[in-house]
Formats: sequence, C-alpha cells, structure tokens
Amino acid sequence: MTGDGAARRRATLLDVATRSGVSAGTVSKVLNGRGQLREETRKRVLQAAQDLDFHIGPSAGNRRAQRSFAVGLLTTDSIGRFSIPALMGAEEALGAGRISVLLADTRGDPFRERHYLEVMAERNIDGLIVMGRRCDPRPPVVGPRELPTIYALAPSANPADVSVVPDNAQGARLAIEHLIATGRTRIAHVTGPRDHLAAQVRADVTVEALGAAGLDLAGGRVHYGAWSEEWGRQAAHIVMRAEEGCDAISCGNDQIGRGVADALREMGWRVPEDVALVGFDNWAVMAASCRPPLTTVDMNLTELGRQAATLLLHAIEGHPEPGVHELPCQLVVRESTGPSAPRPI
Amino acid sequence: MTGDGAARRRATLLDVATRSGVSAGTVSKVLNGRGQLREETRKRVLQAAQDLDFHIGPSAGNRRAQRSFAVGLLTTDSIGRFSIPALMGAEEALGAGRISVLLADTRGDPFRERHYLEVMAERNIDGLIVMGRRCDPRPPVVGPRELPTIYALAPSANPADVSVVPDNAQGARLAIEHLIATGRTRIAHVTGPRDHLAAQVRADVTVEALGAAGLDLAGGRVHYGAWSEEWGRQAAHIVMRAEEGCDAISCGNDQIGRGVADALREMGWRVPEDVALVGFDNWAVMAASCRPPLTTVDMNLTELGRQAATLLLHAIEGHPEPGVHELPCQLVVRESTGPSAPRPI
Repeated sequence: MTGDGAARRRATLLDVATRSGVSAGTVSKVLNGRGQLREETRKRVLQAAQDLDFHIGPSAGNRRAQRSFAVGLLTTDSIGRFSIPALMGAEEALGAGRISVLLADTRGDPFRERHYLEVMAERNIDGLIVMGRRCDPRPPVVGPRELPTIYALAPSANPADVSVVPDNAQGARLAIEHLIATGRTRIAHVTGPRDHLAAQVRADVTVEALGAAGLDLAGGRVHYGAWSEEWGRQAAHIVMRAEEGCDAISCGNDQIGRGVADALREMGWRVPEDVALVGFDNWAVMAASCRPPLTTVDMNLTELGRQAATLLLHAIEGHPEPGVHELPCQLVVRESTGPSAPRPI
Repeated sequence: MTGDGAARRRATLLDVATRSGVSAGTVSKVLNGRGQLREETRKRVLQAAQDLDFHIGPSAGNRRAQRSFAVGLLTTDSIGRFSIPALMGAEEALGAGRISVLLADTRGDPFRERHYLEVMAERNIDGLIVMGRRCDPRPPVVGPRELPTIYALAPSANPADVSVVPDNAQGARLAIEHLIATGRTRIAHVTGPRDHLAAQVRADVTVEALGAAGLDLAGGRVHYGAWSEEWGRQAAHIVMRAEEGCDAISCGNDQIGRGVADALREMGWRVPEDVALVGFDNWAVMAASCRPPLTTVDMNLTELGRQAATLLLHAIEGHPEPGVHELPCQLVVRESTGPSAPRPI
C-alpha cells in the first residue's frame, strides 16, 4: 500500500526531519525562519532539505507553515481490546516522525464525539484517525472543519473516505483452508451474533471455502450466538449432537474457541486428535491459555494502526488514498490443529 | 484526597472554563486579550471569572499565559491491561476540562522514554502523567525541563514526587476478611513471582490478616509462581495435597484464580461448596467467565486515572501534593465464595 505512494511522491517535510534527526516542528521553524535555533541545527536541516531536493513552494509554504504537527486519535472503544493495539501502532508510526498524538475516547457517545472534535479543531490538529470497535461501517465524523481523516477498524460508510480494516474474509479463508489441509472434512462453524458484520463475513466465507473443496458445513448450518466462552460451551454440545463424526470446529473468536475446547474435554473428546479447533483474534491470553493452546487468526492490529498513520500522513501531505484498504490477516498455528487420530478401519 | 485541596485552593482558570462552558484555552485568550472571540463568549467568561473571584495576578499571568493546556501521558505498558483503564480515566478527567492529552508509549524502553520527553517538552506541555505497569517503584523521569509530574500505578522512587497507586494491602485484606467472614478457616494463598512487589505485599497481608483472626496459612507457606492460569492449575494440586481440608484459596490475580477453579473442578472439588476462591484485579473477561464466576478485588483503575489527572491539575496550578497516594480497592462478590457445604458431624 505504501510502496506505490513512496515511489511517486516527492520528499516531505517529515523526510527532512527524519534525515536531520530533529522534529518536524524544528524543520518547519528553520524553513520558515521562525524561532530560536542553534546554528548547527539550522545547517543540518538545510543540508538535509537540499539533499532530498525538498523546498517549500509558495502555496505549500503557506499551508505547511500553519501545520501543528499534532494529529487527533479518536477512539470509540472504551473496552480497548481491539483498538489499543491499533492505537499503539499508530502512535508508534507517528511518534517516530515526531508527530504528537492527541487522544480522546468517545465511548461510542455522539455528544462526546462532537465535543472532542471541537476541542481538537481548537488545537488546530493536522488530521484525525477515527478508530472503531466493530467492523460494521460507521457514519463519517462531522467536525467544525474538514480535516484529513482516516477510519481504522470500523470503515466510514462513505466510500470516498479513507478506511483501513482487517481482511476478515481472507482471515476466515486461512482458518478453513488450514483445517482442510490437515485432513479435516466434517467442519462446523460457531460464531457471534448474526447482526455483526464480522460474524456474517466469516461465516459466509467459511461456507464458500468448504464448498470450493467439495465439502458441506457440518451440522448443516452456521451456529450464531454470542462472542463468549459460555456460548462456546453450549455450542459444542449442540454441534457434537448435530453431526456425528464432526472432526473440526471453526470458531468466530478465541473466547468461543476456548469455551468449545473446555466443553469438548469435559464430554470426553480429545482436541486435536478427535476434533480440531481454530479461533479468531489471536487474543494472546485467551488463545495461549486454552487447553490445548488454540490455533487462531491474527488481524495484525498493530500493523493496521501503523498503516492508518501512514495513510493519514499521505492525506495530510495532499495525497489521500480513498477507499477501504483491507489488511491481510495471518494464521497462528498452535496445538489445537495438530494431527488427527488415525481413523478406525 | 481532593476535598481538602478544594476547600483551601482559590478558583482556577479551569473552574472559570467549566462555569462559562468554554475551553480553558478560550478563557486564557479572553483574560489575556488575545485571539478573535465573539463578544458574547468574552462576556460570559468575564462574568464567570468575576463570579468566582478569579483574577490573573502579574506573576501568575505570566505563567498562565504561557500554558499550552495540553498534558503528556507517558505509558510504559505496551500490553495495556492495567494502564488502559487508568489512561481512560485520566483522559476523561482532563478532557472534561478541555485539556488535551498527548499520548506516548515507551514500551519500557529508556531511549524511547527520553525521546518522548523531548518531543513533549517541545510541545510545551503543562505537565506529565507517567503510567507504569507494575506496582514496583520506578526511577523519576529525567526530561529536558522540570515539569509538574504525577506517577500512576508505578510510584516514583523519590518520595518527594507525587504518586497515586492502588492500595494493594487493603485490597488483599478485603479478600481474606471476606473468606473468614464466610466461615472459611483453612485458607491457602497462591500468587505471582516472589520478586513482584504486588505479590509480596498481598502475601504478607494475607498471612497477617489470618494471624489477626487466630488462623495459620493453610499448607504452611505462600505458593509463589507465575501470574498465569497454568500456574493456578498446578498450584491447586499442590495446595490440595499439602493441606487436607483446605476450604479456601486466595489467589494473587484472576488468571491464577481461574486456573485453580478449573483444576479443582477436574479433581472433583466443588467451588464454593468445598473450596471458596478469591481472585485479584477484577479483569472482567477472566473473572466473569470463570466457572463459577470469581469473587475478586477491583483496583478501581479508572478512578485511579481520574485521581492522577486531578493531582496533576493541582500541581500545575501550583499546589502539588507530594507523597504516595493509595487508592482503596473494592471487593466484587461473585459465586466462587458462596456458602460452603455443611461440614460432616
């Protein structure tokens, strides 16, 4: 996503800052002749600007001189399990370029959201990252003025906006293809609420990927429920009754996976010998403490945060990349999908 | 902690901002005659300042006119389970006063810490909250200039600094007194690493509180180990072998508690009828998914973040409150400490 942009874009003020080892604010001061700076610093910045063939044109100069080198990070997720790694990735990518991050948590409350958008506008931020909790699209933010804005995790409902989200479909496909590759053929799917887009997408892809391999969903239907261990425990009973010989269960998240693992053990089924299990999220404490440790899909949320920051910097520099950018997931293999027991002949 | 301060302190610029319903930055502009503002806003601010008998003296004026109304929040915890609720509490308390929060995560790396302290100093922040992960004291931060600074979760090693931490001793006492109050008399303690201050403090208090009730620690010693479910499962076996008739286990955190619960169930012991269990942290997803749901100690981390923000605002206004402020914990009772089975006569 960034390679293409880097090839065509000219050196930016940030590049000069990185090369000269000072903050973007200092570069701005040098190039605009503002502030008190050591002569040595001034020379280093000017040299770096020359090396990179960077110069502030008349119009760009006006715009850049007004920059605050601070961006807003608006999170709507007071729980934080998904937004925090992404937030840390964004903070890292921005901090390395010495862009300050202004943090605000709206707790999903539209009044708080409006309040914080005003506060941030007063701060004259250069841009905004809006970080959601669920994958369902959200209405675009409406602040006191137009700002370069990136939506992360929850995409904007307006396709002209810039959004970056995990590729749920590709992630779900990884899980199913791994189960098939390890020889499982009677695969059930237990997931969260039917009205959550993430649950729907993962379930649809599961059915589709099984079909592509000439397989049907074990038990004949997707088991929608809650994102909880309790639902996982209940569902394990339902699944094992519905499909004799079920040899794998793909779970919509790690909590469900863990509940399924506990219930299977208590029913006397061995994981992975009798039934293989895959989760989703790679929530370390949940997946690694599962008995046995759970194979799962990692959404690379820290990287997603970094990409959001990179897209924001491009947008601030005048190169927005509109549309929904999907970031690939990766499979983390643990014991729950080890070899199956030999079939009785 | 704040009541005393509120009684003696004079109205602050923030009080004026709150009363007039504008940001602290706007109040500053009005009182310093800077910026373009609507006449109506100007009047409202001046009225509020008069009502509260607030006026900027010559020296205070100089200091306040330089204020940025932004504070830094430096977290050393890239995992986030403890710092995130505290961070959200601080952000809420500051955001309500329209103080912007600049976020930086050092990931426990001293070089990153120095880098971020420089960046924040360039931003001319008014003060700093340093948020740790563990309860062990940490060295004071060394930035390019002296700033009002509050240490949260991990106290500063310098007692002249301002720190706010959970009251681990009081929390551990709540847990043990609750077990004793429900009639348990043979109580074991399973906890984390011996070199973690939180583990030590909780263990010492446990032994002390049992002694005060004329009881000895079941099994004769504290079971130090790891903060993990796996250790909880191992320890449950050790404890039940070491002390026949053990009727309660107090656990150093919820993960250990959950591991103990699983192992007891698999050994055929009923919780709470045979053995009562208490955890520590009230990590919702861990404690509530435990079978049965786990009674535990909540450190009130969101409130701790709010208090850190309040202490910081006092320090910025020239009223630092040095020392280590300990915030009380509270007990959250769930099924794991329900009634015990009648003893055979």
